[in-house]
Amino acid sequence: MLLVQNIRLSRILRNTWQVDLIMIVSCVAAYLIREFLIAHHLDIPAIIPTVLGTAIAFFIGFNNNQAYDRWWEARKVWGGLVNDSRSWARGLIHYVDPTDVQLARTMVFRHIGFLYALKASLRGETHNFRAEYLTAEDETAISSHTNLHNAILALQSRDLQTLARNKSIDSFRFIELNEMLVRFTDGMGMSERIKNTVFPTTYSYLTKVFIWLFVVSFTLVISQSMGVWSIFMGWIIGFVFVSTQINGMSLVNPFENNSASIPLNSITRTIEINLLQMLGEENVPAPVKPINEEYIL
Amino acid sequence: MLLVQNIRLSRILRNTWQVDLIMIVSCVAAYLIREFLIAHHLDIPAIIPTVLGTAIAFFIGFNNNQAYDRWWEARKVWGGLVNDSRSWARGLIHYVDPTDVQLARTMVFRHIGFLYALKASLRGETHNFRAEYLTAEDETAISSHTNLHNAILALQSRDLQTLARNKSIDSFRFIELNEMLVRFTDGMGMSERIKNTVFPTTYSYLTKVFIWLFVVSFTLVISQSMGVWSIFMGWIIGFVFVSTQINGMSLVNPFENNSASIPLNSITRTIEINLLQMLGEENVPAPVKPINEEYIL
Amino acid sequence: MLLVQNIRLSRILRNTWQVDLIMIVSCVAAYLIREFLIAHHLDIPAIIPTVLGTAIAFFIGFNNNQAYDRWWEARKVWGGLVNDSRSWARGLIHYVDPTDVQLARTMVFRHIGFLYALKASLRGETHNFRAEYLTAEDETAISSHTNLHNAILALQSRDLQTLARNKSIDSFRFIELNEMLVRFTDGMGMSERIKNTVFPTTYSYLTKVFIWLFVVSFTLVISQSMGVWSIFMGWIIGFVFVSTQINGMSLVNPFENNSASIPLNSITRTIEINLLQMLGEENVPAPVKPINEEYIL
Amino acid sequence: MLLVQNIRLSRILRNTWQVDLIMIVSCVAAYLIREFLIAHHLDIPAIIPTVLGTAIAFFIGFNNNQAYDRWWEARKVWGGLVNDSRSWARGLIHYVDPTDVQLARTMVFRHIGFLYALKASLRGETHNFRAEYLTAEDETAISSHTNLHNAILALQSRDLQTLARNKSIDSFRFIELNEMLVRFTDGMGMSERIKNTVFPTTYSYLTKVFIWLFVVSFTLVISQSMGVWSIFMGWIIGFVFVSTQINGMSLVNPFENNSASIPLNSITRTIEINLLQMLGEENVPAPVKPINEEYIL
Amino acid sequence: MLLVQNIRLSRILRNTWQVDLIMIVSCVAAYLIREFLIAHHLDIPAIIPTVLGTAIAFFIGFNNNQAYDRWWEARKVWGGLVNDSRSWARGLIHYVDPTDVQLARTMVFRHIGFLYALKASLRGETHNFRAEYLTAEDETAISSHTNLHNAILALQSRDLQTLARNKSIDSFRFIELNEMLVRFTDGMGMSERIKNTVFPTTYSYLTKVFIWLFVVSFTLVISQSMGVWSIFMGWIIGFVFVSTQINGMSLVNPFENNSASIPLNSITRTIEINLLQMLGEENVPAPVKPINEEYIL
Repeated sequence: MLLVQNIRLSRILRNTWQVDLIMIVSCVAAYLIREFLIAHHLDIPAIIPTVLGTAIAFFIGFNNNQAYDRWWEARKVWGGLVNDSRSWARGLIHYVDPTDVQLARTMVFRHIGFLYALKASLRGETHNFRAEYLTAEDETAISSHTNLHNAILALQSRDLQTLARNKSIDSFRFIELNEMLVRFTDGMGMSERIKNTVFPTTYSYLTKVFIWLFVVSFTLVISQSMGVWSIFMGWIIGFVFVSTQINGMSLVNPFENNSASIPLNSITRTIEINLLQMLGEENVPAPVKPINEEYIL
Repeated sequence: MLLVQNIRLSRILRNTWQVDLIMIVSCVAAYLIREFLIAHHLDIPAIIPTVLGTAIAFFIGFNNNQAYDRWWEARKVWGGLVNDSRSWARGLIHYVDPTDVQLARTMVFRHIGFLYALKASLRGETHNFRAEYLTAEDETAISSHTNLHNAILALQSRDLQTLARNKSIDSFRFIELNEMLVRFTDGMGMSERIKNTVFPTTYSYLTKVFIWLFVVSFTLVISQSMGVWSIFMGWIIGFVFVSTQINGMSLVNPFENNSASIPLNSITRTIEINLLQMLGEENVPAPVKPINEEYIL
Repeated sequence: MLLVQNIRLSRILRNTWQVDLIMIVSCVAAYLIREFLIAHHLDIPAIIPTVLGTAIAFFIGFNNNQAYDRWWEARKVWGGLVNDSRSWARGLIHYVDPTDVQLARTMVFRHIGFLYALKASLRGETHNFRAEYLTAEDETAISSHTNLHNAILALQSRDLQTLARNKSIDSFRFIELNEMLVRFTDGMGMSERIKNTVFPTTYSYLTKVFIWLFVVSFTLVISQSMGVWSIFMGWIIGFVFVSTQINGMSLVNPFENNSASIPLNSITRTIEINLLQMLGEENVPAPVKPINEEYIL
Repeated sequence: MLLVQNIRLSRILRNTWQVDLIMIVSCVAAYLIREFLIAHHLDIPAIIPTVLGTAIAFFIGFNNNQAYDRWWEARKVWGGLVNDSRSWARGLIHYVDPTDVQLARTMVFRHIGFLYALKASLRGETHNFRAEYLTAEDETAISSHTNLHNAILALQSRDLQTLARNKSIDSFRFIELNEMLVRFTDGMGMSERIKNTVFPTTYSYLTKVFIWLFVVSFTLVISQSMGVWSIFMGWIIGFVFVSTQINGMSLVNPFENNSASIPLNSITRTIEINLLQMLGEENVPAPVKPINEEYIL
Repeated sequence: MLLVQNIRLSRILRNTWQVDLIMIVSCVAAYLIREFLIAHHLDIPAIIPTVLGTAIAFFIGFNNNQAYDRWWEARKVWGGLVNDSRSWARGLIHYVDPTDVQLARTMVFRHIGFLYALKASLRGETHNFRAEYLTAEDETAISSHTNLHNAILALQSRDLQTLARNKSIDSFRFIELNEMLVRFTDGMGMSERIKNTVFPTTYSYLTKVFIWLFVVSFTLVISQSMGVWSIFMGWIIGFVFVSTQINGMSLVNPFENNSASIPLNSITRTIEINLLQMLGEENVPAPVKPINEEYIL
């Protein structure tokens, strides 16, 4: 998640230099073709880039809207995980009979492990965090599973049933806590859905093709009155569209490990701090710090 | 679900060649008519294609938005089935008394059968998968039903009641598991709704008519300054609109068996793997592989 | 619900001939006025129809979006009724004690009667279907009510309480089944809301006025370069807007008995078939057939 | 809620005459300024009103969309109150032990009183209706509260607890009925939210300013070719935007007592009729009648 | 929340004077460059600002829509807190056994403290309000927590369990009240999500860059026909876009302490009044008053 209000133009140029190069070459070619091949034969009417502009406006708007929706939905899903994690811990700490307080604590710790495992899976990280929050026995139990976080939830269900069998919670409280497990399953599955569903690639492909068509025809048209300057203007206008498109696409996969993504590190840490404080732990880690005062992961 | 970022233009041309032909013929006709019939009688003002462009922009935007919404809703419905399947299995495995573990396992297996039956129905496939997950008795019981997956859910209800009568689950756990059956009914019905509701055909019909009107009037207008080149430009611009429209329409029926559809094979297999691992099965199938590294079904 | 992809143009012309006539008369008048009154006095700038086009584009887009939303919401409501009807029947068949199986069957049959009564009310039909699914006693009980389907739900509540008093269901199952009655109440009320709420009439009224203004000013402008052909072009462009508007408005009242409406006959029949098969009935009606292979009601 | 399809133009002119006057004066001024001050010095390019038109199109579209959303949400909230009122009455009538039938009836009557009190508060009416549905004791109890409808709900909770203490309902039915009270609280609070939240006034303010800028620059531009007729055309185009804006804003406060509002009188009466018939009352009021066949309140 | 319909133009100019200055300087520069450097060498085609206008229209529309959505979601979240606070108090007052009435009252008071703590955290205020509604013991308990409002909810859970252990509420009522705590957790977390998630800064950055590009190219184009007046018109049009953008951005952080924000002071006070009156308190504070009749905080 970006924090700074002013993005350095250099950062944008660094992201777009390949496309910029293609556009400049295309503009030069368009200019030369018009100047030496078609200048005296035919007029290129301005309606051509105008109509193409309409198509591009639709595409860029569509792509940006859908990308933002994916990003915001991802943020909501993890916001939901924050809320339910607090309700889960509150329930285990206050509604479980004192005789089983140790098991309840284990289940809160294991939940932090669940979040780190889910985060690692979404970010494609190696699973180095969970060790401190899972017991050795837990680690063995889940090791044979391809989906580690789902396996951790199964352990929670097993222990919830144990709490019920021990009469440490009655069936009503069992239902309430199980409801949280169902919600974690939902949040986990929704994150996986956003991560695994490729935004239809035809949209970004057609956008690229149409921007290129636009830049070429635009240069052809304006070179009629602006001459060699049309190369510069063609690139500027192309740059406007390209940077808008790239900007939108930076949100489409909100669980990647880059500056525009949902700050999973920071959110997971917030939950960790809340839960440890609710457990009365002294040793609480500090919140995640921004990188270069520029963005937070 | 398409995986590759760069669609070969040949694929798009293959999808649109009939429309391309119609457009080129129309453009040639428009060019000839203007050249030999009306060139010296009247000017065709550029406002005509401009206004038509507005109407087309609305239509293409509308169609694409609604098609994407259907596609994304379909994905969400199956994402929900993933989540609830895991909660269903987790509940049956951990909350049922050990004396009835066999029946609980049967119910998890039968659920996989339910998913394959639903998938086959949505895709219009013959039901060849379910045999391995349903008992022979089950198959007989559902054979007289026109809606197989609904019939399988009825069997689950019957066995859930059996678990309750055996006191293997108390009424609270019964309610929790029944809630999952209600959700499966919802997911199943929502899938059927998307599959069976034809997107209002007037929208795509009018879009086609208006694109054709646009291409003709556009060619008439630009042929005034571009001559025979107007045929080429008319087709290019028409192609932009047509490919956008076809692209959108490829998402409108997300349960068909093509490269743009929701990857039901892959999702069902993911659930299958999760559930088998939760049951502790050794023999777990591999995830579905992409076809030609290009798309996944 | 329309099934065919190609609407005959004759059908569209039949729906719009009155408006077409008004437009043609207006275009002729506009042409004559310009030709004989104002041709030599003043130029009519193209910016006038262009700006009006913007306003119309907003209106037509807005109307179409809201109409489609009403239509799709109506479809979702009835999709929900499909799902809950299945859950209702599944619950009554499997969760009620065998001693009360007859009452449970009556309640499933009565539910089909409820759906037919609701459908008849939404479509403004006379209530000729329900007789087969309601007992004579039921018919007497509801006869004094203005809202028949609501009265049927009250009977279901009464019998659900009877099942509970007979101990044929425990309180948990009572709650589950009552939840379905609450959902039917919701689906019923949502259908009535969509049916009874008139889409703000100012929107379609202003759309008509602005299209007329547009057609007249458009004809005035293009007649400066196209002469008498402007009458034809004015009508064509007007036709584009009018048919779009009429197309959208055909979805705004999705419970009417026409080819664009939600196919309530077909959906009700689907539920009927599912429920009868779940009850093990032999005598199951056939699905509703499309009319002329063109649409389904 | 308007019922007629054709709004008399006189009604629209009556709503807009002040703005019309301002616009006509502005157009005359613009015409005179151009004619006598700047005609021979400079050309006013058409791009100025065109660009302003884009900004206005955004504003008017935005305002209309948000206003309609508020209106439709308000309608949904009251649709929800219809549904839950029926479920509330059905539950009290059928699930309460016959020994407490009188208290149950009182609670249904009091609910009608709640709806009238809520409606009166939203509409800013004096509370003259509730007397017939509340007991004298109720009236005393709520008299000290600033929020009467909230106070009535508290009485319902008190009596629901009494029903439970009398064992006339078990805890399951208590929960079901209490759930309805929670939903009434939600519907009540959502209505208050829509009523009390002022739509950001900057939007309508800027819209007015930009329409004025547009009308002036538009008149300046077209007066170059149309002379004195530009005053008329400037006003016509301004009228199109103004009437669209005013039309949208008529929906933004859907609980006011005017022809475009949600018909609270009619909806409340519908619930009243349903509930009285469910109670078996003979003396049922007639539905609310439209006013002048034109709109319903 | 702004109350007045007419914003003083001076207020808008005060908010935008820095940008206005930059724009005027840019317009002057553009005018001078064209006049003395490029006037006789090349024509600047109007299509350049037109195309840029399309891009800006997309950006401003997108930013405004998303900002409004954040604002309206924030309002809904706090509307939900209003509703659930009333249900919470109603439940504690009427469903708790008279023997524990004192503890129930404490829990209602503490809830007001929770709301003030949450409000203070969202607004970044110092926590001076909560003292009157929390016991000294409560204050000690939460003092070690970084998230005070979450800590208060934990106290509520602890006391709810006490009520249940004392048999002052049965498990059903426990569940109902706990459900409210879960909803408070959700409302609290959703508020934090909106507050802590920075709206992607690239959007407002690119909007600024593109408006600047637009103003410059627009001035260049119109200076060809309007001369020195183009400076004024360039600024006017730039002002239209800038004020629209700033207006939208004023809603993007709805929990800040300014005139456009959600009126948290007023909403919290409303709940406070409702709850105190439900408790039968005599000493009820007055509603929050608007500031300068202009806005309410």
